[in-house]
Amino acid sequence: MIASKIAGMLKEKDNIAIVSHVMADGDSIGSMLALYNALKKMNKNVSALTGDKLPKVYSFLPGFQDIRNCDSLRDKNYDLLIVLDCGSLDRIGLCSSIKAGMIINIDHHITNSNFGDLNLVDAKASSTGEIVYQIIKLMGVDISKDEAVCLYTAILTDTGCFKYSNTTLATHQIAGDLITYGFDFGKIHDMVYSNYEYDCLKLLGKALSSLQLYEGGRIALMELLYDDFKGINLEDISTSEFIDYARDIGTVEEAAFIKETSLGEFKVSFRSKRIVDVRAICEKYGGGGHIRAAGCTITGDLKYVRDTVINEMKKALKDEMV
Amino acid sequence: MIASKIAGMLKEKDNIAIVSHVMADGDSIGSMLALYNALKKMNKNVSALTGDKLPKVYSFLPGFQDIRNCDSLRDKNYDLLIVLDCGSLDRIGLCSSIKAGMIINIDHHITNSNFGDLNLVDAKASSTGEIVYQIIKLMGVDISKDEAVCLYTAILTDTGCFKYSNTTLATHQIAGDLITYGFDFGKIHDMVYSNYEYDCLKLLGKALSSLQLYEGGRIALMELLYDDFKGINLEDISTSEFIDYARDIGTVEEAAFIKETSLGEFKVSFRSKRIVDVRAICEKYGGGGHIRAAGCTITGDLKYVRDTVINEMKKALKDEMV
Repeated sequence: MIASKIAGMLKEKDNIAIVSHVMADGDSIGSMLALYNALKKMNKNVSALTGDKLPKVYSFLPGFQDIRNCDSLRDKNYDLLIVLDCGSLDRIGLCSSIKAGMIINIDHHITNSNFGDLNLVDAKASSTGEIVYQIIKLMGVDISKDEAVCLYTAILTDTGCFKYSNTTLATHQIAGDLITYGFDFGKIHDMVYSNYEYDCLKLLGKALSSLQLYEGGRIALMELLYDDFKGINLEDISTSEFIDYARDIGTVEEAAFIKETSLGEFKVSFRSKRIVDVRAICEKYGGGGHIRAAGCTITGDLKYVRDTVINEMKKALKDEMV
Repeated sequence: MIASKIAGMLKEKDNIAIVSHVMADGDSIGSMLALYNALKKMNKNVSALTGDKLPKVYSFLPGFQDIRNCDSLRDKNYDLLIVLDCGSLDRIGLCSSIKAGMIINIDHHITNSNFGDLNLVDAKASSTGEIVYQIIKLMGVDISKDEAVCLYTAILTDTGCFKYSNTTLATHQIAGDLITYGFDFGKIHDMVYSNYEYDCLKLLGKALSSLQLYEGGRIALMELLYDDFKGINLEDISTSEFIDYARDIGTVEEAAFIKETSLGEFKVSFRSKRIVDVRAICEKYGGGGHIRAAGCTITGDLKYVRDTVINEMKKALKDEMV
């Protein structure tokens, strides 16, 4: 079994680098640090590396301060390079310069290209954290609070708090086991999901105040204009989830969020719940995405953009109702 | 074992009423309907009863339409009255008029007064749903999708999406088992946690726009004035969770939400994160609550109320920092 083979290699080799993908998320950082902490306990010469900036929200994870930029270690030669949560090798970005005798690819994306010398790709796992949990068990290392915090965070974030359809019986069994290691999992939920920036809430307030319904409440429109961003430090702020509020109004089928990113240029995000193909709308304006979540950029004055968006949404809804 | 005894009684008796507490929540309705659906399958003459209005948000639960007002059945005589999720018998409100040969009390509140003829009180269970799951298993009934949806909703809501400290290994194991019955649990998360009213989001927008920070970001203040509620249908709207946004700003220790409920009368909610005792503030103004969540009513003009609230918060923070 490939998982046992990988566990065996990790026990055998000494110089080990662990990397994950650029634009790191809770699963990539959590699974990396879980394995890092476990290998540390085995007195391995192990490095957790990144070629990208890390989101501050995960700085509570044990070992976070030890993550180094791969650039500083490009002359080192590792026995093993463990690549976590990457469907293809280009996802590791600048870390591709790392030299290693062997690449081990551990992932849960069904699209994985099997780029490693050893490949453990389990598309049924909710998260890479779930697979790393099994490997740590196979290595015979006693999981401690540090690894448990990292793995729980990986699973929590990749399942959207046990909500996404990738959540399985095994996911809950592992999460249940992890919380027995005695850490404050409620605090992790808060740090990941209820940890706001003041400027972000002010922007959300403006966006919600702009909310308008059309077609008997089946269409919702939200806006943020160029002036709304004045004096706002956008570095740690994402407005990408604002549109979820509009979509999640009980009566709404179709929602759009118009964001003036520079004067006269509007980024428009569309969402639908069950019937409307919003990608088709976006493709007409040179954008794209998925059927229920898509985006495009429209230039012009606000009235033109707003009218265009509302008319396209009304038309799409009408077409689907026929 | 008391659980087996109760399962035996449920199998033996035929006329069974199930009630839960007034101001019903996901656990009380979910556990009631799970047991109701299971007993229905056993061809029992079973009634799910309430003496109160039910929150519409749970109308997706199988059997919800069958819940009847206990008033219509006050002349009936039941073999068993199953009381779920009630720490004391007065929690069933008007359903106390129901006549039954025996009362079975099933609950998870540590304060339970053991008011039943049989009492199954498990304070280690996250929810009454978790206990009802065990009873249905002991009755030897095959759980089907309907019961699974009800029990999952009960557990989900009483654990705050597996976040609260009442969540245990057993909780996750049961949730994991329940999702194997093949229902769309993601949709349940959405219906319970992401199901907004337009008017509520408009109010939230106004509240967030009013957000102000003090003391280097450690204090947050939010307001909704009497005029903000004009034209808003308040029947299905709760603003009680708005203050969580203010409290959950990274820098904030102490937050207040001033709500003008009638002209010149302000309901003020306070929250703190770790150090400030906000109950002490509220008690000075005739209010009360918990150390980290409390409320009071202050009358006067807006400037007076706002100054009072800010000064009290600054003082409390200073006292704790000494």
